[in-house]
Amino acid sequence: MMVSIFLVFLMHLGFATLESGLARSKNTVNVLFKNSMIPALGLITYALWGFSMMYPGESFTGGYFGFSGFGIPLPEGGETSAYNEGYTFWTDFLFQGMFAATAATIVSGAVAERIKLSSFIIFSILFVGICYPVVGMWKWGGGFLNTLEVPFYDFAGSTLVHAVGGWGALAGIILLGPRIGKYVDGKIKPIPGHSIPLATIGVFILWFGWFGFNGGSVLSADPGAVSRVLVMTSLAAAAGAIGGCLFSMLLFKASDITMVLNGILAGLVGITAGADQMGVTDAITIGLIAGALVVLAVAFFDRIRIDDPVGALSVHLVCGIWGTLAVGLFGELAGPDQLISQLIGIGTIGAFSFAFALFVWYALKLTIGIRVSAREEIEGLDIHEHKMHAYPDFIGTGFEMSLDEKETMADANPRNHKEPGKPVTP
Amino acid sequence: MMVSIFLVFLMHLGFATLESGLARSKNTVNVLFKNSMIPALGLITYALWGFSMMYPGESFTGGYFGFSGFGIPLPEGGETSAYNEGYTFWTDFLFQGMFAATAATIVSGAVAERIKLSSFIIFSILFVGICYPVVGMWKWGGGFLNTLEVPFYDFAGSTLVHAVGGWGALAGIILLGPRIGKYVDGKIKPIPGHSIPLATIGVFILWFGWFGFNGGSVLSADPGAVSRVLVMTSLAAAAGAIGGCLFSMLLFKASDITMVLNGILAGLVGITAGADQMGVTDAITIGLIAGALVVLAVAFFDRIRIDDPVGALSVHLVCGIWGTLAVGLFGELAGPDQLISQLIGIGTIGAFSFAFALFVWYALKLTIGIRVSAREEIEGLDIHEHKMHAYPDFIGTGFEMSLDEKETMADANPRNHKEPGKPVTP
Amino acid sequence: MMVSIFLVFLMHLGFATLESGLARSKNTVNVLFKNSMIPALGLITYALWGFSMMYPGESFTGGYFGFSGFGIPLPEGGETSAYNEGYTFWTDFLFQGMFAATAATIVSGAVAERIKLSSFIIFSILFVGICYPVVGMWKWGGGFLNTLEVPFYDFAGSTLVHAVGGWGALAGIILLGPRIGKYVDGKIKPIPGHSIPLATIGVFILWFGWFGFNGGSVLSADPGAVSRVLVMTSLAAAAGAIGGCLFSMLLFKASDITMVLNGILAGLVGITAGADQMGVTDAITIGLIAGALVVLAVAFFDRIRIDDPVGALSVHLVCGIWGTLAVGLFGELAGPDQLISQLIGIGTIGAFSFAFALFVWYALKLTIGIRVSAREEIEGLDIHEHKMHAYPDFIGTGFEMSLDEKETMADANPRNHKEPGKPVTP
Repeated sequence: MMVSIFLVFLMHLGFATLESGLARSKNTVNVLFKNSMIPALGLITYALWGFSMMYPGESFTGGYFGFSGFGIPLPEGGETSAYNEGYTFWTDFLFQGMFAATAATIVSGAVAERIKLSSFIIFSILFVGICYPVVGMWKWGGGFLNTLEVPFYDFAGSTLVHAVGGWGALAGIILLGPRIGKYVDGKIKPIPGHSIPLATIGVFILWFGWFGFNGGSVLSADPGAVSRVLVMTSLAAAAGAIGGCLFSMLLFKASDITMVLNGILAGLVGITAGADQMGVTDAITIGLIAGALVVLAVAFFDRIRIDDPVGALSVHLVCGIWGTLAVGLFGELAGPDQLISQLIGIGTIGAFSFAFALFVWYALKLTIGIRVSAREEIEGLDIHEHKMHAYPDFIGTGFEMSLDEKETMADANPRNHKEPGKPVTP
Repeated sequence: MMVSIFLVFLMHLGFATLESGLARSKNTVNVLFKNSMIPALGLITYALWGFSMMYPGESFTGGYFGFSGFGIPLPEGGETSAYNEGYTFWTDFLFQGMFAATAATIVSGAVAERIKLSSFIIFSILFVGICYPVVGMWKWGGGFLNTLEVPFYDFAGSTLVHAVGGWGALAGIILLGPRIGKYVDGKIKPIPGHSIPLATIGVFILWFGWFGFNGGSVLSADPGAVSRVLVMTSLAAAAGAIGGCLFSMLLFKASDITMVLNGILAGLVGITAGADQMGVTDAITIGLIAGALVVLAVAFFDRIRIDDPVGALSVHLVCGIWGTLAVGLFGELAGPDQLISQLIGIGTIGAFSFAFALFVWYALKLTIGIRVSAREEIEGLDIHEHKMHAYPDFIGTGFEMSLDEKETMADANPRNHKEPGKPVTP
Repeated sequence: MMVSIFLVFLMHLGFATLESGLARSKNTVNVLFKNSMIPALGLITYALWGFSMMYPGESFTGGYFGFSGFGIPLPEGGETSAYNEGYTFWTDFLFQGMFAATAATIVSGAVAERIKLSSFIIFSILFVGICYPVVGMWKWGGGFLNTLEVPFYDFAGSTLVHAVGGWGALAGIILLGPRIGKYVDGKIKPIPGHSIPLATIGVFILWFGWFGFNGGSVLSADPGAVSRVLVMTSLAAAAGAIGGCLFSMLLFKASDITMVLNGILAGLVGITAGADQMGVTDAITIGLIAGALVVLAVAFFDRIRIDDPVGALSVHLVCGIWGTLAVGLFGELAGPDQLISQLIGIGTIGAFSFAFALFVWYALKLTIGIRVSAREEIEGLDIHEHKMHAYPDFIGTGFEMSLDEKETMADANPRNHKEPGKPVTP
């Protein structure tokens, strides 16, 4: 089962490449920097207090909030009642710690290309370190969603991981506003990512990692159950690709690879809540609908001026909710009672996550600010926040200059300047 | 054994990066689009009918063709006689489904840079959905090649996967013709791929995936047998690299990295048919010869005007045949009777696959056509089939334009035009 | 445990992408060529004689040097006393063979951008084929460091793999000298790598691979012990990232992503010697210090004019030594006696590796030479050693030209010429 940890870890590379591929080259270092720091910060905060908040054990949990002390609480006898057999204590910690950081990674892509680095780092620590383990405990730590008469069901985190990340992203986008040049004179301007190969690598690695995400969530080594989950996960991803492809061809008359890639992710997010409950037809149906949903959602968010560079809301929030609802509609748990419990889970987790994120983002906005200056945004976050370029050989050298000279060069280089026709807002 | 599935899945990323790296940047999105759709289509067709055609079970197989109904035929008691112990039913399905799509991926690279997207998708569905499971059944499903007096032997698919893909590719290339600018005035013009790093990433990931491809084909968890297969696989790959390197230095006086990369793949394909039968010396010999063969084959196909942008024929067809023959020449099964059975398998599978592919490609050529227009080929498939660029930041922006304007831009941009000295054929 | 082999293999891709990302685009093919050949050469030499030198068995070892014959010595009964239970013989061979090549890969990055290809290949064969197995035997093959009263302890090779590679790199750098344009008029000029995404991919893959490197080194399938090692490995990597980030912000006032990436690697190298001995606090402390050390070391080596393009010395040599010392300072073995043994191991292994490498490099320098000409260095190793470009679409085509014409083009292209302000030394 430790293999699952390796795979979930590699999802951070998947997110890093996907999100940097869908950003512009002038912000690539910034995206990669954030995505390199997130798993590091996630693991350390999880070790310092997060694990103990998420799995407080029976004696400490209050249904809504629990805490069993700082550090990693060593279990008596190596196992506690809060986690299943087949796993060692350390495997459990690491698997959960790798999960935790995922929620922040989802936010990272959505706020990319205009977020201030320091604010994002602070947000990530609070979001991964407090919000995620609190709502995680509600279900996986034995909290109130797990003790409903018909327990809320979220196998591997369509809501607890993906929608939580999506809510954090939505709060950030609302307070940040769209990127300069995205909505001009009432028109939606596409801002394509700088490297489709990077984005494609990201999606394949995420699919690869999802085998660990969903397979590992069986929390046992029963090969029958695990392999069934892997099949349903793959079929949903495949159906998502086909759904995204067909639906975007119908709607936009183009074979848009980003919709195939988002369709794959949509199918994966959609199956995550019930991967162990579904049959073949269910999995394909859930994936197809997720693939269609993601296309509609991308268009919808653009229409309401919610600027999400990588489509994180469409994939993780919309399809996370869809997948959670699907548990009540398809498969072995389907039924009105289950559907109501799913709605309760979606609602309470969503309300808390969104409110928490909105509060943190707003506090940051009032204090150190959350958005870079218009000049920094136009010239690129890489040169301003990091004093470097992602591809220095392909933008006109500059590498023998001092930092001061680099600044000058950045000013002199028309590429780094106001693009024609784009209004610069202060 | 489920780890093997993960690795075989990742081979699709390996092919995607290898083939896009060896294509020009103007066709990169197209290559990635195809390679993203193939595993999705492969899995779904395999779930709908392919698995049931390939492993029809004893009561249904007729030696040449079998079918046990649409959908995934659930076995009685969770296991059927058609597959081995140590695997769950679902693991078997997914492992085989991941394999299936590989054959189409091999074709993808060979027909790249001039194939019409819609035709390729239709071909892929038919090739993966019909051709592959039919010939697969001949051996792995218990068909006539498995019941020869001396059974045909193909451990993990040198012929059943790689040569099948190679035959499909050859048929496509013959009907498609070479790329514009490849053979001009009787001279062979090299058209280098746009990103050696992408191609290198692809080959390493394919080697990584081959551990699953060959290791998983042991179809048991016996660590002795599996680890022996892994060693022989790695030694053949290493010897292939050295063979490709030395032989291309002898022949072309250059340290051509693509020959090292192709040598690695050649060694891997070559060992695949008999990875469980070979000793250390056998594996190194097979790999060295495969590495030399791939260099000769690349030169040979160019001389006969078979334009294969990624060397798929040289790697998968030539070395697939070589590896299958090697089972009769080296290792524990070596002998004239085995060699004859190997030739029967190579011949019958090759004849069926090539005829099937030729028929489908020809039918497509007569109906919707299989080749893009000369203008589309010269300006790039990305802008025409997908309305986007793989690297929009590095070709002169254009992203705030409408699609019509993009077309105009494509016309105005000299990069996208007829390259000097290249005749444009209609 | 075979999964560990897969992961350690993939580390070669990690090094290939990291080192090529940190090199300039004109030398990218060269870096990738070296890193593709290294695992091939490493495996073959290990099969021919290396394994038998490193694990000579009890009857052959002399404490300082052993050899039990060419080829892979098949053990009696499938297991020998020289390696642990839980592993098959073949698994052991392949795991060790994958390790062996790592030492040469570390050297590859440090001497990049000016080393002559042929000399590097010869050095690699000798270093991997002789130096590594000799010092490896001292500890892992049962040699004198393993039979000290308080045995030298190096769990997975902070010294035996990483520092050995680092010493080989240091010897090479000293004899090669710095790259043209690195130290000009008494000033240190940064020469940034050409692709931060490639470098980031490399570091994530290395972290991924390290799970195999350290996890597999437990040499048993005890899930408790393995998972504990994985947690400590991850915490050290995370702490290294944070240490590198904070320390470089303090020192250089910039959020330099290369320092985060190097910090991750520093943490990983630092924990490697004692990953099975450390607790949570130990692992985080070791990682934080490693992250700080790597920042200081990069600045230090630049000050003393040791030009290491990828920071290999700072990561592998400095943190390899740090990690080995840490076994005597933290964790279950900590104590003055252990610390002395650690110093003995660091000293003897370092002295032998450095002397061996210095001798080989010097012999090569006197005979075929180790450095390319100034013209080759300025125009790029790719066009001269390999007659190709890593990204031909992005440097002004040239692909329909003959090789002679390519040379001419390279002369005519100002990009490939003397950069302004850079003195050309002969």
